[in-house]
Order: sequence, then structure tokens, then C-alpha cells
Amino acid sequence: MNTYNEALQWRYATKKFDAGKKLDKETLDQLKEAIRLSASSYGLQPYKVFIIEDAALREQLRPAAWNQPQITDASQLVVFANDTDFGDAQIDDYINNVATTRNLEAEGLKGYADFMKSKITPLPAEVRAAWTAKQTYIALGNLLSAAAHLKVDVCPMEGFEAEKFDEILGLKEKNLSTAVIATVGYRSEEDDTQHYAKVRKPASELFETI
Amino acid sequence: MNTYNEALQWRYATKKFDAGKKLDKETLDQLKEAIRLSASSYGLQPYKVFIIEDAALREQLRPAAWNQPQITDASQLVVFANDTDFGDAQIDDYINNVATTRNLEAEGLKGYADFMKSKITPLPAEVRAAWTAKQTYIALGNLLSAAAHLKVDVCPMEGFEAEKFDEILGLKEKNLSTAVIATVGYRSEEDDTQHYAKVRKPASELFETI
Repeated sequence: MNTYNEALQWRYATKKFDAGKKLDKETLDQLKEAIRLSASSYGLQPYKVFIIEDAALREQLRPAAWNQPQITDASQLVVFANDTDFGDAQIDDYINNVATTRNLEAEGLKGYADFMKSKITPLPAEVRAAWTAKQTYIALGNLLSAAAHLKVDVCPMEGFEAEKFDEILGLKEKNLSTAVIATVGYRSEEDDTQHYAKVRKPASELFETI
Repeated sequence: MNTYNEALQWRYATKKFDAGKKLDKETLDQLKEAIRLSASSYGLQPYKVFIIEDAALREQLRPAAWNQPQITDASQLVVFANDTDFGDAQIDDYINNVATTRNLEAEGLKGYADFMKSKITPLPAEVRAAWTAKQTYIALGNLLSAAAHLKVDVCPMEGFEAEKFDEILGLKEKNLSTAVIATVGYRSEEDDTQHYAKVRKPASELFETI
């Protein structure tokens, strides 16, 4: 087994964190960089990521996440918030970033911009929002793997009330919505789950080669 | 920069593959294992993954993917197909797998099974399908990172007609639908894109720490 898959074997959805162990700045920065480097549709990164450290805010959010203790006990709470009104303006921002990063004229990228706009902007709002939400799952998957590589524990979570999160974090007025969340930190030694055998479908069931 | 993030820097959405270079079995098996170990909601893995090697089938699929050449030129085409009718039966399969893997009585897991059933099965079909589709994006993200670690190139693709893919692959009658696809292989030396600077939002824009 290579080190990548060894790290995946090591990780598990950590429910019980050691509340006394916090990520140091360098480790957190590396995880943020992994999120930032995540692939997304056309590279548009149609989301924003909130790193929540404030204890009072996490206390406030916890009831909206089935009162799960990792919300307050973990080192950080990460909220992936997808764009709910992604369109021409965001595509122009992206094109300007391409031009700056690659030292090109934005005008020369107009054809590509128009192509993306023709594919994305006419879609109904709920289709665009579903599409931006899916992109956050690539970043979430990358966070899980990057963290495992650094022996950092993560609990990915869908068990939360998005509307309450959005309200508490003031996301709606920013055209954002909570897509998925995760807590990062270090597993409690008392968490028995870490010793359980990992449950996955056998390859023969999950894959079909044609 | 750690090796994980170095691998992410190395990767890019490879459009031009070296059609003469194929993955060896061991490398492909490692990628499949990374997909298999991917996290998913409750660990349910509500999808199936098709590894398509057959040249004639790929020729047939290519027009349904904007005629993009990587469909036929890459070493393999990977189709992530999400469950479109996930419910009690699939949850029971999962519980049986937990019981077998951890040497437990399935009966003792009934409370957990009932909890998942109460959360998932009553949801409208389209909500369940959107939820299973999102899980495939975690696996896709993991494939991208695992491949980069092994210096294998991937092109993740949303530019395809899901209905045509479903029809050609006979997915509908299996309660599956094409959620996202990717091609894996090795970049062509002629692909200039590999030399372009990676475009990502600056951390100051993507993240907000509270």
C-alpha cells in the first residue's frame, strides 16, 4: 500500500476530539492551501470557506448541528459555503484572475468567458446552486485526504440545518449557503471508533470494468 | 510546502493525453483503492464506479461528452454513477457489511439502521439523488489527489450529457445515473497547459477566519 492510501486507512470520521489539542498555524495553513488548490468546475471555485475558531459562535452554531460536541470541541470548524447566485460577474472575476496570474490580456480571454457564461448563467438558480454545492465536496474530499496526510483528524458533517447556519453566519445577504461542514483537530484517545475496522464496499461490488 | 500540496500543484485538468501510455495494473489498483476508501455520508458509498477501457464503447460515449478527445485517448475513462433510488434496502446492505466487517450482530445495529432510514428514505427522490451525486464528488476529489501523488494525470469532467451516458451504459434500469466523469492516464508532452501558472483565488478572498 502506498503512503496515500495508508493515510486514508488511518483516517476516520472523528466524532470525539481532544479539546485541549489545537492545530498550529503552519498545519492549518497547509490544510487551507490544500483546500485552495482543490479542483472545481472550470476552476471557478464557486464557494467561500469559513474557518471558525470563535468559541461563542461555535456554541451558537452547535444546536443547529444536532448538538454534536465536535462543533465546539474540535480545533476549528470549517464551513464550506457555496455561491447561490453564480453568474457573469463571478466569471469576469475569474477571467481577471487568469489574466493577472498568467500575464495575459483579459480581452483575449473574452471568447472563453462568453463560453462559460453561455453554459452557466442561463441555468435556473436552483441548478446553479446545486452545481456550486457539488464543487465544495471536491474541496471537502481534499481536506480529508490532506489532513490524513498530516495526521490531523476531521469529521465531515452533513448533519446540520443549513438555514440556521446561514442565518447565524449572515450568509444569505452574501449570496452564500452552507453546503457542508467539517471539524478539524486531533482525535481523543478515548474515542473507541479509531480502533474499529473500516467499513467499505468490496471492490468487486463498487467497481465494474468494461 | 509538503509533498501533498506539491502533488496538488503538479496536477492540472489534463485535456491532452499521451494515447500510447497506459496505466499499469498496480497503479490503477491503487487509484481504485483510493476511490474505495473515500469518505461518504454515513459511509454509505451510494454510487458505483465504472472503469471503461473498451475502445468501441468510448468511441460511442465521446459525442455525448462534447466530443472531447480525452474520452478516447486517455488510459481509462472513469464514470461515477450515483444511486437514484437509495433507501432501506441499501441501508440494510450497509448494515450487513458493518456487521460482517466488525464481527457484530446486524440485529444490534438496528437502532442505527432505523435512524439512517428515518433520515434518508422519506426524502423526495430528487433530494436523495442530489445527495448521492454529491458523495461522488468526494470520491472524485480523492481520485484527483491520489493520482497526483502517483504522477498520474486526470481530467475531471462535467461536460457531458448524463442522459446519453446513462442510456449507452444502461444505467437507468440499475437505478444509477452518471454524476461526474474523469479520464486518467499520462499527459502529452505537447500539452502546453501543463506549463501554465495555476489559477486559484488568493487565500484572502477564499477564506474568512472568524
